[in-house]
Amino acid sequence: MTPTTDPSTLRPLWPDSDARRFHVVDQTLLPHSFVTVAIDTPELAAHAIRTMQVRGAPLIGATAAYGLALAARRDAGDGHLGDWVRELKSTRPTAVKLAWAVDRVATALVGIAPPNRAATAWAEAGRIADEDVAANEAIGDHGAALLRDIHAGHPERPLQVLTHCNAGALATVGWGTALAPVYRAHAAGLPIHVWVDETRPRNQGASLTAWELAHFGVPHTVVVDNAGGHLMQHGRVDVVIVGADRVSVQGDVCNKIGTYLKALAAADNGIPFYAAVPSSTIDRTVANAFADIPIEERSGDEVAWIRGRDSDGRVRDVRLIPDGSPVANPAFDVTPARLVTRIVTERGACAPGELRRLFG
Amino acid sequence: MTPTTDPSTLRPLWPDSDARRFHVVDQTLLPHSFVTVAIDTPELAAHAIRTMQVRGAPLIGATAAYGLALAARRDAGDGHLGDWVRELKSTRPTAVKLAWAVDRVATALVGIAPPNRAATAWAEAGRIADEDVAANEAIGDHGAALLRDIHAGHPERPLQVLTHCNAGALATVGWGTALAPVYRAHAAGLPIHVWVDETRPRNQGASLTAWELAHFGVPHTVVVDNAGGHLMQHGRVDVVIVGADRVSVQGDVCNKIGTYLKALAAADNGIPFYAAVPSSTIDRTVANAFADIPIEERSGDEVAWIRGRDSDGRVRDVRLIPDGSPVANPAFDVTPARLVTRIVTERGACAPGELRRLFG
Repeated sequence: MTPTTDPSTLRPLWPDSDARRFHVVDQTLLPHSFVTVAIDTPELAAHAIRTMQVRGAPLIGATAAYGLALAARRDAGDGHLGDWVRELKSTRPTAVKLAWAVDRVATALVGIAPPNRAATAWAEAGRIADEDVAANEAIGDHGAALLRDIHAGHPERPLQVLTHCNAGALATVGWGTALAPVYRAHAAGLPIHVWVDETRPRNQGASLTAWELAHFGVPHTVVVDNAGGHLMQHGRVDVVIVGADRVSVQGDVCNKIGTYLKALAAADNGIPFYAAVPSSTIDRTVANAFADIPIEERSGDEVAWIRGRDSDGRVRDVRLIPDGSPVANPAFDVTPARLVTRIVTERGACAPGELRRLFG
Repeated sequence: MTPTTDPSTLRPLWPDSDARRFHVVDQTLLPHSFVTVAIDTPELAAHAIRTMQVRGAPLIGATAAYGLALAARRDAGDGHLGDWVRELKSTRPTAVKLAWAVDRVATALVGIAPPNRAATAWAEAGRIADEDVAANEAIGDHGAALLRDIHAGHPERPLQVLTHCNAGALATVGWGTALAPVYRAHAAGLPIHVWVDETRPRNQGASLTAWELAHFGVPHTVVVDNAGGHLMQHGRVDVVIVGADRVSVQGDVCNKIGTYLKALAAADNGIPFYAAVPSSTIDRTVANAFADIPIEERSGDEVAWIRGRDSDGRVRDVRLIPDGSPVANPAFDVTPARLVTRIVTERGACAPGELRRLFG
């Protein structure tokens, strides 16, 4: 991985040509070290999702799809596959794309004789991965057009984008969702600067988004999650773009915890707020996003402990919080559609109220 | 420092009886170790404020007041004292109480012969410290009455308070501002639970508020700054209470970065938002809080590096952010009066719109 101006080159997941193994970047070790992990069993695929070696809705979807293909290679019987469909879906609760990808591979196996299932499943996982890259590239083009329009209103200065968490190439099979428009606009010469929310507790912004943007030479500045409202009040943010783990067909956006606070600040300051998602992230089954989307409650240790590099360059985990203090760690929140300006999908950008007509 | 049920016992600043030295708790080392620092020169006082061994508007005010008294002991001439008035005021820019305390000591010396100035200044600093404790105790009583009223609406469950940063005993000479009502209500038997915002980048919530609340046995849970909006959406917060570094007479509240985001979420969910401050924190000179209050921009290292305790119990600093990524670190933001339900001072609680009539 050497610096490049081409974001299409960054793939955090790729299959071996022999269809027996795929590889992922272990994102728990970034930005301090770049290590890849070979995955050749469904157990390792489930482990990678659970431990967040892979994260980001599109990427965990692709990982689960390949995981089910690996399960089919071991035993393509209906009972075994059904067990792994359930097991892989249970690894994370919030992102709808995980279940979508597993179901898509399972559906592709209907009517396929067991001896052919492993190859069919592997090919379907590959299509899911390839389609993700293509969808994100299209999201990038549609989103970049919106960014150019906003910049045209003040061509004398760079466009100021704020993003939360990591919805970049590392969150997908390629390009990213929220960052795809940034990459496409930057490649096309639009002057752009990205405010990167740190994104506590797992710091995907400071660890992953900052790493990606530095990698591709996109000007950016890391800020704590608390800073975005102040920046918006002072005219230092032109647009907010985030990804999402699930978007209800009503236009409510479930994404990393803290997204709702940024959407409130954007609305309070008249700043457009975009969610960029492949259409497979839109959930047609949710009637009330606030009641029906399961919000993952993760371990308090993710808040109490943090990983960094000491002055000798050694990566260490340190505890931040007094031993006697309990910790809660909800991982996602829901931003109501009324605070969302546009949903950007591979088919174009629309108001959240149009989702049902377009995708319902 | 052993656990106690009496929050009036926690003093992060106290003078020696010989009027030559005062002591502070080094808050950069909490919650990992409890170390006190003896201060016997104005240089050490300025250093304690600049390096945030002491922080919190009331506490830095008292520290600066004693610092000026130590300067008067060394040389009570007008030139020397004028230099130290300027030097001490320059240590932090945002909290109005710092300048207020320095000016008050300086004013007390007007017409005092130089040989008597050190004793006069020391006595005035002591009055500032004592008045702070008394004001905060009164804030506690007025605020506790508001908390009881809110709890009366749902007496079947504990009152859920959310606070940002540390406006507890450690931020003042005693009792705290935002936490004084919590302590008074808890002591009176009100069932109460506090959500403690971590408060990046310096983690005053996770490090100091959690430590204080554990110390006094007040039920609490630490959450990342991103979580508050989600908790409010789900009915898990009844009231938000914060302190402030400066409140404009129009009712705009300048406080730790991120306060504005919590105020937006409180307003969006119909939850009362209180700022608890001694009246000396109200600035009558500010015409436009967003333009006129200087927002301190602190070192990016506060974001890039963090201090914690490793698994061997050793306190270490670790770097979180890739070397190639710039960092910005604005330390405060301004919450507009329209988002503030009540300002609680030692004289009682009022709507922000009443401040000018009461204190203008």
